[in-house]
Amino acid sequence: MALEVSPLAPARFPTLPAIAGVQFATAACGVKYKGRPDVCLMVLDPGSTVAGVLTRSKTASAPVEWCRAQLPHGRARAVIVNSGNANAFTGKTGETSVKRVVQAVAESLGCRPQDVLAASTGVIGEPLPTERIVKTVKGLPKKLKPGGWKAAAKAIMTTDTYPKGALRKAEIGGKPVMLAGIAKGSGMIAPDMGTMLSFAFTDARLPAPVLQALLRQAADKTFNCITVDGDTSTSDTLLMGATGKATHPRISDPRDPRLADFRRALEELLRDLAQQVVRDGEGARKFITIRVLGAASQGAARRIGLAIGNSPLVKTAIAGEDANWGRIVMAVGKSGERADRDRLAIAIGGVQVAEAGEVVPGYDEAPVARHMKGSSIDIEVDIGIGRGRATVWTCDLTHGYISINADYRS
Amino acid sequence: MALEVSPLAPARFPTLPAIAGVQFATAACGVKYKGRPDVCLMVLDPGSTVAGVLTRSKTASAPVEWCRAQLPHGRARAVIVNSGNANAFTGKTGETSVKRVVQAVAESLGCRPQDVLAASTGVIGEPLPTERIVKTVKGLPKKLKPGGWKAAAKAIMTTDTYPKGALRKAEIGGKPVMLAGIAKGSGMIAPDMGTMLSFAFTDARLPAPVLQALLRQAADKTFNCITVDGDTSTSDTLLMGATGKATHPRISDPRDPRLADFRRALEELLRDLAQQVVRDGEGARKFITIRVLGAASQGAARRIGLAIGNSPLVKTAIAGEDANWGRIVMAVGKSGERADRDRLAIAIGGVQVAEAGEVVPGYDEAPVARHMKGSSIDIEVDIGIGRGRATVWTCDLTHGYISINADYRS
Repeated sequence: MALEVSPLAPARFPTLPAIAGVQFATAACGVKYKGRPDVCLMVLDPGSTVAGVLTRSKTASAPVEWCRAQLPHGRARAVIVNSGNANAFTGKTGETSVKRVVQAVAESLGCRPQDVLAASTGVIGEPLPTERIVKTVKGLPKKLKPGGWKAAAKAIMTTDTYPKGALRKAEIGGKPVMLAGIAKGSGMIAPDMGTMLSFAFTDARLPAPVLQALLRQAADKTFNCITVDGDTSTSDTLLMGATGKATHPRISDPRDPRLADFRRALEELLRDLAQQVVRDGEGARKFITIRVLGAASQGAARRIGLAIGNSPLVKTAIAGEDANWGRIVMAVGKSGERADRDRLAIAIGGVQVAEAGEVVPGYDEAPVARHMKGSSIDIEVDIGIGRGRATVWTCDLTHGYISINADYRS
Repeated sequence: MALEVSPLAPARFPTLPAIAGVQFATAACGVKYKGRPDVCLMVLDPGSTVAGVLTRSKTASAPVEWCRAQLPHGRARAVIVNSGNANAFTGKTGETSVKRVVQAVAESLGCRPQDVLAASTGVIGEPLPTERIVKTVKGLPKKLKPGGWKAAAKAIMTTDTYPKGALRKAEIGGKPVMLAGIAKGSGMIAPDMGTMLSFAFTDARLPAPVLQALLRQAADKTFNCITVDGDTSTSDTLLMGATGKATHPRISDPRDPRLADFRRALEELLRDLAQQVVRDGEGARKFITIRVLGAASQGAARRIGLAIGNSPLVKTAIAGEDANWGRIVMAVGKSGERADRDRLAIAIGGVQVAEAGEVVPGYDEAPVARHMKGSSIDIEVDIGIGRGRATVWTCDLTHGYISINADYRS
């Protein structure tokens, strides 16, 4: 099934410079797809640190379990990724496959297997074509080169309709550092492709515990605030490598004030990538930003935002260009978080439509109706009981989603 | 928008006899609909007890809040219901409306306002046409008659495609009792109709605390185990009245062994009504039964079942007649409940497709493919770690759902 590029896609893949100490190589291995790269090796110079955020699924894939075991070491020399097969729900065979592939990468680079991380995305429940990948992997080191972001972003795609990349610059202690990354994902995709994968890199010099703390905080405000269909992949993986090639002063505490600009840049980078995933949501025609404020806590605000963003009734109303705030009230109510009907206020497209628990008498529907016809929809919900805030991004639920996920046999 | 009767509807509305001590009256009040009954008064003889289970929504409607305040008394003489307007998110005005309507019913019946319960279903955020309803209500007592179940079931419909009723008989201490009920609901419905409402009655003689315990237990295994789109209405209400006209011995404890047959009948009655709601699910073409066993607890089993039943990817796969067990694995994983990938087993249509964490090698796909083409789909998931069991019912997610919820403006 050929998918058209999402109407919400960015105009182009950004120009991403090489990051010192990071190299890529890709190859067409025929894991599932024919005639396109589907294996990507990312190599970090010795001394690099690594951090990661992994799916909370209780049925996580074999490569996710491998990463969970290795990440506490905080060191990595390589990440090996394949698309076309998720190596999920493949039992002991799946574990053995990861070990074989990782061993092959380690041998070809001359490092330890535990310094090689892995990620897979694609069909669930089918054994990985391990020997074919191992053979391909052995030929990759001689193809390594700095840059090559777009080729890497393309190699990890499943039914994404466009490759996703982003770049940010920052300063630490007055010295420049660079952050860049790639991502893939557009929901869980037909026939049973899955997964959001993202790989970010920086030349900053950060101990692994510092990098891990920064990545976790940024992920909580970005990748953990997006939803397409509320379904969690068995394979979601966000990894970040720091090569330490930058010349800034030594940092040993994630709360160090000199990290403020890096923190901002990292959050922007991940938000950019996360929003690109939403913009490639299956069948998406509208990009939706949901700001929640006045909640009991930041966590409560995010859960309320996700309850709204996951509501099929809110998402279909937006697809129908209907400013149906009654469904937003319903979704706030079902979130389970503390709310007071008589304090709730809702604005759509910057226009207050409900406040103090009632529709705003005689509010001007015209600008709201115009806003609903656009491709970028803004919803603001003030719970009115506290200071918790969060922003969640999602897309509408259209016939396109049903077609992609239900009609593929027809 | 005229909706066709669901292809999953029962052949006919059942023949329901009168229950001693219960009378109905309906009227066309024009709350929103024209030319059809939209107000229903249900009257219980003096001495009746009452119990109820209400939505957990934090933005519950005004009539739900009224019921929540009155139910602890355990006594009721009447329930007044209107369709077409939910009286939800209507602020203080909404509270006043409920009081005015309830007061009018109380005056016309000669009882106390606190003995009158109320329910409303329909548009959110619009004030109830209180005076019109009050005027209509005053004329209802003289129309009261025993029986009239089908007229009552029709008067409470919003965009349901058929009226829903059920009957069960039981014995308490060797004496016959009867249970009957009606329900409405088919998801949350366009443009912003909501709500599952159900009203059950019995001639059994049961103290309110006993009735409440039995109703709560039965609801947990029936109405709390169904899902159409995972969206919770602001108005969901299940009420049950017991008139005490039966001649069985006095019962004072919900654990009394003489209640075993009543308990079975009540659970069957509510399951019948709950399944009829699912069979009227928006756009539903397939009725899905999800049995979960081997979970850590009964609650865990139900949450896993609902995670599967609410997954857009599972529901679209079934709409596409695809036995996509990978998506079931994904949904188990995202439930957050304890699971072990390597113990999980899945059967579809009685055929084991996955066990011990892997696809069953060379399983016969032909009977599974045949099963997927039917209108009744059975999924069994054995978590393999405990003894918790639950059954959840849902329907598939089709273009019909999107059309009903997104296309109504076009």
